[in-house]
This record gives sequence, structure tokens and C-alpha cells, in this order.
Amino acid sequence: MSIDTPGPADRLLALTMGDPAGIGGELSLAAWQQCRGGGGPGFLVLDDPDRLAALALNLRLAVPIMAVDSPEQAAAVFHRALPVLPVALSCAVSPGKPDPVHGPAVLASIEQAVGLALAGRVSGVVTNPISKSMLYRAGFRFPGHTEYLGALTGAEAAPVMMLACPGLRVVPVTIHVSLRQALANLTTEEILRQARVLHGALRQQFGIEQPRIAVAGLNPHAGEDGAMGDEEARIIQPAVEILRAEGMAVAGPLPPDTMFTPRARAGYDAALCMYHDQGLIPVKTLDMDGGVNVTLGLPILRTSPDHGTAFDIAGQGVAHPGSLLAALRMAADMAAHRTATQGDVR
Amino acid sequence: MSIDTPGPADRLLALTMGDPAGIGGELSLAAWQQCRGGGGPGFLVLDDPDRLAALALNLRLAVPIMAVDSPEQAAAVFHRALPVLPVALSCAVSPGKPDPVHGPAVLASIEQAVGLALAGRVSGVVTNPISKSMLYRAGFRFPGHTEYLGALTGAEAAPVMMLACPGLRVVPVTIHVSLRQALANLTTEEILRQARVLHGALRQQFGIEQPRIAVAGLNPHAGEDGAMGDEEARIIQPAVEILRAEGMAVAGPLPPDTMFTPRARAGYDAALCMYHDQGLIPVKTLDMDGGVNVTLGLPILRTSPDHGTAFDIAGQGVAHPGSLLAALRMAADMAAHRTATQGDVR
Repeated sequence: MSIDTPGPADRLLALTMGDPAGIGGELSLAAWQQCRGGGGPGFLVLDDPDRLAALALNLRLAVPIMAVDSPEQAAAVFHRALPVLPVALSCAVSPGKPDPVHGPAVLASIEQAVGLALAGRVSGVVTNPISKSMLYRAGFRFPGHTEYLGALTGAEAAPVMMLACPGLRVVPVTIHVSLRQALANLTTEEILRQARVLHGALRQQFGIEQPRIAVAGLNPHAGEDGAMGDEEARIIQPAVEILRAEGMAVAGPLPPDTMFTPRARAGYDAALCMYHDQGLIPVKTLDMDGGVNVTLGLPILRTSPDHGTAFDIAGQGVAHPGSLLAALRMAADMAAHRTATQGDVR
Repeated sequence: MSIDTPGPADRLLALTMGDPAGIGGELSLAAWQQCRGGGGPGFLVLDDPDRLAALALNLRLAVPIMAVDSPEQAAAVFHRALPVLPVALSCAVSPGKPDPVHGPAVLASIEQAVGLALAGRVSGVVTNPISKSMLYRAGFRFPGHTEYLGALTGAEAAPVMMLACPGLRVVPVTIHVSLRQALANLTTEEILRQARVLHGALRQQFGIEQPRIAVAGLNPHAGEDGAMGDEEARIIQPAVEILRAEGMAVAGPLPPDTMFTPRARAGYDAALCMYHDQGLIPVKTLDMDGGVNVTLGLPILRTSPDHGTAFDIAGQGVAHPGSLLAALRMAADMAAHRTATQGDVR
């Protein structure tokens, strides 16, 4: 047997601070309570230990905080304390009151987590929500979290965004652009690129040997043979044919409204969608145990909860950790599949 | 008490034949079995009694067929037989094999049902699915079922399409056009027109005194303050403001992906959507007890099941009557609310 059994440190995940005025801190505390007894994977937080200890005290959460200096030490203490690799904040945080002064610490937390993952010292990165507008004021120059991770990890092409909930995984080919711009941006090449990244990830990180991908049409009824739009024939169908010629199990272009019925969802492993809301509406309509955002196409594993900083409820202890827990569990599952796959390949 | 108690005949619905080679006939038989004992409203079918009797025999369904000559007679026999107002077919039907020769009978069934509803002799019309391509070959010149009903009833403006399932009602402002064309067609005026029709229907046909309408944005995140599209500011927001000035409880423009979460859905009575799939994806993702298509803005009530002729399974007895039953029940509920409302007004 040539597979190296991963040691405890290999299985630990790195969880970032996120915006310290948001709900990230209290979610980290709540997630540790769920995971320490085996309800989820082990993780360390890259955060300010003092502010987490104060937050636990305020919220009357019995979460011992322990500053650690390595993932190995973190793995050793996880069962009895939340391990924190210190990232110092320059001044106190007021929950619900974001301040650009914390921007450098927010970014340092992400950079250090990525560094640990690139060095193989943690199995992946889970990110708490950040506030782009706060970071922009602190000099941040990326369109978002995901693009920043792409740059930090030296990814060759733009990362691919997957949103997943129990029973449904979607990848929108175009994302944060107007619907008009999405129509203009949609190309056969981009569908091909993202389908290939998705196919590889489903095999190597989700453990699906023969992934089945459903490709959505763009127009109502997938254009109804050209009666309602020609993008299916011009752009999408050619991509589907090339992917099939490469040996992938790809269906489509499918009528967008009927491809997400419970029966239809059972027939594929992921849906490749043409625009943001085509993919995100069905996931959030289901909203079962909390959606998870997964970044594909990076040299590291990265997941994140499918919600924002929620400044309006931060510090009150009412934020629900369901989506962060789902993100931690999915990252751990993906890491286990990746380890197994790499073992098989040796 | 000035409300006239509606007699049995007032409460009967008229159910059309639909394409006789499709699943409509067997659904009518199955629906009668469910409704005769009180599981749904009474109805009469406008169909060929001989072909329904033969279908019942083939499928071994214990459904006595009785030809009737009036809704009053139909109401008297409904508890013991499926009442059929005869619409003769010119030749035999082969299930699964559509034939344009049946076009005139399909249209006659619709026309007679509408005539009964306009005359107040039935409380509404429920339509079985038709095949547009068969009717086109028989000389039909309308874009679809709904437009035909608009013409038959002399509706002043284009009817408004609602799709409803338990817990969610949606009205797409643009429907059967390409997504590119939907962007071009979207206007403040059309949003206003359909919102007003929807608001009136929610009050008068769904019994909701103060309807709450959620208006969707068009772009991801509803444009995020113009960063991803300006249709929200240019087209949708002005409509929302006018509707509010008219006294309606209208929220929006809302981010399309988060407005259909279970929690969000609980906050409104109907969603006004900007394009076909924005409204239909969430309904069909839920696909609970079968969606119902409701036509608003006609002088008569009309619902229909949310599926097609299903020629591929016709005549086998495997088609599920859930959506037709939901359509019958919804039409009956709407008729009861309408009667009550009219009573109140007297």
C-alpha cells in the first residue's frame, strides 16, 4: 500500500479571520464547539487570540482559546481549545462597526492561511466573510476574495466558482457582471475552460469517477430550436460537442427551468450555468443546510460559507454557523478525496 | 345577508380536452377518481365521450363516463360518473401519435369551455395541455393557449402568466422571448401593468386583503448600486415607487438569488420577475405538489397544469395527475374567493 496515511496536521484546515467586525469570529467559536467532539474536522484560526477570548466571554461561550505557533501544535490541542495562530489587530474591534484600520490584519490572515496550504502544512483554507469596501479603503486592489486567492497562489487562469448545497452543485460561467454583459461575455472557450476545471475537480476533489455534467441553455426552453435565441446553437452546443469528444458525460444545452427539478437534479453531479442567478437561484431556493462556496482551479483547496459579514447582527451570538460548518466539512471531504487520488497516482 | 349562496352548478369547473393524443384524457379520468369523493372540486370535461370510455377500458380505470348536455346535469351526476359535454372527434385517436386532424375538436373544446365561463354557467376553465405545432398545422394563428384565451374572452390587454406552487407564486414580466430580447422588452410601463393585474388578482381571486409583492432585480445582486447593470435604477425602481405611491406593499428591486430562500419566500405573497427563468427556476426547483399555471387579467378564471402533452408516455396510465389536481383545486379556491368578494361588494 503506497498511500501515506495523512497525519493529524495534514488534515487540519486553516480558517481565516474575515472582517473582525462581522460575524466571522463568533462563527469560528461556534464551529469549534461543533467540531471538537467529532462533529466536523479540526481547524486552526488565523486571528487575534485576545479578541476571540473577549468575544467568547461576551457571548458566554465556553470556548478556551489557545495561541499556537504551528499547525502541528494546533492539531495537538484542538480537542480541548480553539487553536489560534496569532494575527494581531492594531486596535480594538467593535462588532458591527467595520473599520478599514483592520484591513492589513484581514489580509495577513488570508496570506498566512494560503502560505500554510501551499506549503502542505494544512489541508485547505476556509475563509470567513470579508467586506470588500473596507479592504478597498485599505488599498486592496482585487475584484474580490477569490481573485486575491488566485493571485496569492499563482493560479494560471481565473479561478472557477462553485456553489454547492446538499444535492446540487452549480458553476456559473459568468459571474459578477450585468446580465447584459454576461450575454456579451459568454463564449464557447470559456464554457470549455470552466467545464474542464469542473470535471477535474469532481474527479479529484469530490471522488466522482465518471462525473455527469448538465450544461444549461441560456434562453427560455433552451431557445426552443432557435425560436427564442441562438446562443444555444452558436455558443453552447459546440462546447458540449467538444467536451463529449473529450470523453466527458455532458448533457445539454438543457432548458434552464426544468433542469433543477428534484428528479432532474438526481441525474447529474454538477450543473454548468450560463449566468450568476441561473445557478444561484436554485441553490438558494433549496437553502438546505447552508450553501458552500468552493473555489476550483486553485493549487490549494478553498471553501467559504455562502453569506456575508452580516454586520447588522454581529456580536449578538445569533448568527447561525450552519454554512461555515458545511464549508469546513466540505473542505475536509475534498482534502480526503485529494489525498486518496494522489495516493492512487503514485 | 346579501350573498347568494352559489349553487352546485356555479361551482363546477370546465376542463378541456387538450391534445387527445397526449396525457390529458387519462389525467381527466384520474382526476375524477380523486375529486368525486370530495378530494377536489366538481368539473365537467369537454371531450369525446366514446374516446374517454375506450381509454378508461384500456387503462382498466373504473370511471363511468356520462354524456351530459348542460353544466346543471353535470353537477347532478358528478358523484357517480365523469360528466362529458360531447365534443366529437372526427376519427379515432392513437395515444402518443398526435394528428392535426384533431385540431378543430381541440379548439372547439376550448371555445365551448370559455363560452360556458363567460356565460357564468361554470366557475372557471382548466385546460389540458395542447400541442402548438399540431394546432399550427390545423391553421391556428395564436402564439399559444393563453393568447387564444385572451382573444376568445375579448381581454383588453395581454393576459398575465402566473406560475404557482405551494408557498410560491411568480409572475414573469417577459416570457417567451430570448434573454437578449427580454432585456430589450423590459419597461417600467409593463412592470406597472403586470403588477397592477397581479395585485388585483391577489385581492379578488386569492383572498389576500393586503398583498405583498416582491419585485426582482434584473442583474446579479440587483445591480449592486449600479456596479453590475443600471436596469434597476432606470426601469425597475421607478415602477416600484409608483406602485408604492398607489398604496401597494411592494419590496424591491431585490437581489434575485436571495429572494427565493425559504425565509425570504415567507415575506411576500407573489414575486414579480423580470424574465422567464428567473421566475420559473425557483418554482420548478421546489416542484412540490405540482406547479399550476394561472392566467390573470382575463374576464374568466383559468388555470392549467404545469406540464405538456407528454406524448412519450400517453396512453400508458403512468402520467401523474398531481399538477392537474392542483390546477383544479386552485381554480376552485379562486372561484370561491371571487364569489365572496363579489358578495361583499353588493
